Amino acid sequence: MAKLRLGALEAGGTKMVCAIGDENGTIYEQVSIPTTTPKETIPKMIAYFRDKGIDALGIACFGPIELDRDSEKYGYITTTPKLAWRDCDIVGQMQEALHCPVGFDTDVNGSVLGEVTFGQAQGKKCVMYLTIGTGVGGGIYSNGELHHGMLHPETGHVLITKRTADTYAGRCPYHKNCLEGLAAGPAIEERWGRKAVDLADCPEVWELEADYIAQALTGYVMTVSPEMIILGGGVMHQEQLFPLIRKKLKEYINGYIVTDELADMEHYVVPASLHDDQGIMGCLELARRALENDH
Amino acid sequence: MAKLRLGALEAGGTKMVCAIGDENGTIYEQVSIPTTTPKETIPKMIAYFRDKGIDALGIACFGPIELDRDSEKYGYITTTPKLAWRDCDIVGQMQEALHCPVGFDTDVNGSVLGEVTFGQAQGKKCVMYLTIGTGVGGGIYSNGELHHGMLHPETGHVLITKRTADTYAGRCPYHKNCLEGLAAGPAIEERWGRKAVDLADCPEVWELEADYIAQALTGYVMTVSPEMIILGGGVMHQEQLFPLIRKKLKEYINGYIVTDELADMEHYVVPASLHDDQGIMGCLELARRALENDH
Repeated sequence: MAKLRLGALEAGGTKMVCAIGDENGTIYEQVSIPTTTPKETIPKMIAYFRDKGIDALGIACFGPIELDRDSEKYGYITTTPKLAWRDCDIVGQMQEALHCPVGFDTDVNGSVLGEVTFGQAQGKKCVMYLTIGTGVGGGIYSNGELHHGMLHPETGHVLITKRTADTYAGRCPYHKNCLEGLAAGPAIEERWGRKAVDLADCPEVWELEADYIAQALTGYVMTVSPEMIILGGGVMHQEQLFPLIRKKLKEYINGYIVTDELADMEHYVVPASLHDDQGIMGCLELARRALENDH
Repeated sequence: MAKLRLGALEAGGTKMVCAIGDENGTIYEQVSIPTTTPKETIPKMIAYFRDKGIDALGIACFGPIELDRDSEKYGYITTTPKLAWRDCDIVGQMQEALHCPVGFDTDVNGSVLGEVTFGQAQGKKCVMYLTIGTGVGGGIYSNGELHHGMLHPETGHVLITKRTADTYAGRCPYHKNCLEGLAAGPAIEERWGRKAVDLADCPEVWELEADYIAQALTGYVMTVSPEMIILGGGVMHQEQLFPLIRKKLKEYINGYIVTDELADMEHYVVPASLHDDQGIMGCLELARRALENDH
């Protein structure tokens, strides 16, 4: 039986999803507020949560964000290209208005936490969640905690070996050949001249896409060694990608790593399991953990 | 003041370094036993430790090894190419003979633990140690623990983009273009026809080497986001590599990630700090932790 009333805020670049739920992952109600400027958007979010009687709030936020509790800027959105939100103290403003503990992490760490707490990855110790949509981002859960490091994972920007036949220049302004620049939705559209959804019947599109994604996954397997890799985001709605990615990943690893997980590739590289609620459910768990740490 | 007497075993493919020390990282005595077969080598190690009155033993071991405590094969060396040691229960045999708690991890996790506990990385939360010698391996320390995942990191086998001008086929039997296959000592020797030590004055050798290492480091930064990367192993005795690697890493990241650590590259990518004792000192800490967990 649920005992807590928790607030969840999935803070995205186009919309802010605000919800009320509990520690079992049940969502009672949910609204969506357009992301315009902090001056306009934050008061609307506060107004939504203010009279809901929440015990704690969990925020999973677009980045980059400051997660180091020893930093003066803990709880800030930092060097985002969304200029209005640069240097915005989102945690501080919500906490000051709502007077409750606030959990805070990246949007993708929220998603992996949702899957580990309430979804298919329950009981696993080391899990990666990768979203491939307008951008590419990744969250890592390891030994009960969301992984941070000096910043937080920026797994969309790992380097990829381009195929010789792929003359597309890439879209990332920082890296000639990173995963996001070569394989996010806008890159697919720019390379092939049509939106990804209109390319569903072109096998060469998905064969190339799967190759680049599998190269990145190979790096994650060799470095983080996750027990499961969950792929979400708009591009992954092209479900034909999953078998192609699994096949390529197997080819790249080429028998070097032998584990039960890799032997069962169908359950190793998988789609998200929570009907696109993994992010907001992760926020509920972020809220629960913030409350626990506050006691 | 030291209160414990700890055994340390750095188990390598050519030699077994056995030592006695304490929880402050002080090494009292040390011997080296050639690695031949388990039947020959293990009794010699047991004979060394047996009358030393140790409270616990820490083993940092060549791999792959089984680190999953729920596995029947916990404490085994598993699918190693050193056939005599395949499926060898090294932890079980040492424990049975010595009747004390035994800590166990990979050789490179031992090294990173030594650096974090006694060396330059003290106080840091997320650190990587990479050894580049006859092979390439990496250890990851994160949030007080050595990182495992489904297996353990195999960071030597991340994929690298080969330069067009580099026609060398690579030495890894599994991967056409992984770091170990393209940049470990034997690859340098095979590509250029001379041993690495005899190539010290050839700038093109180290420029290429630094490029490949920096590509791998870029992947680690984007994925694990370590606060410090320590580079050890025989190849890294070519100290001219450090400034080249730092320069290349900066170029690959290209300002995308902005942190205090990356701004101070001289202290971000660094050589090992413990006079090649980081491994054996890490074993002392593995032993101390095994004793602590046993209580």
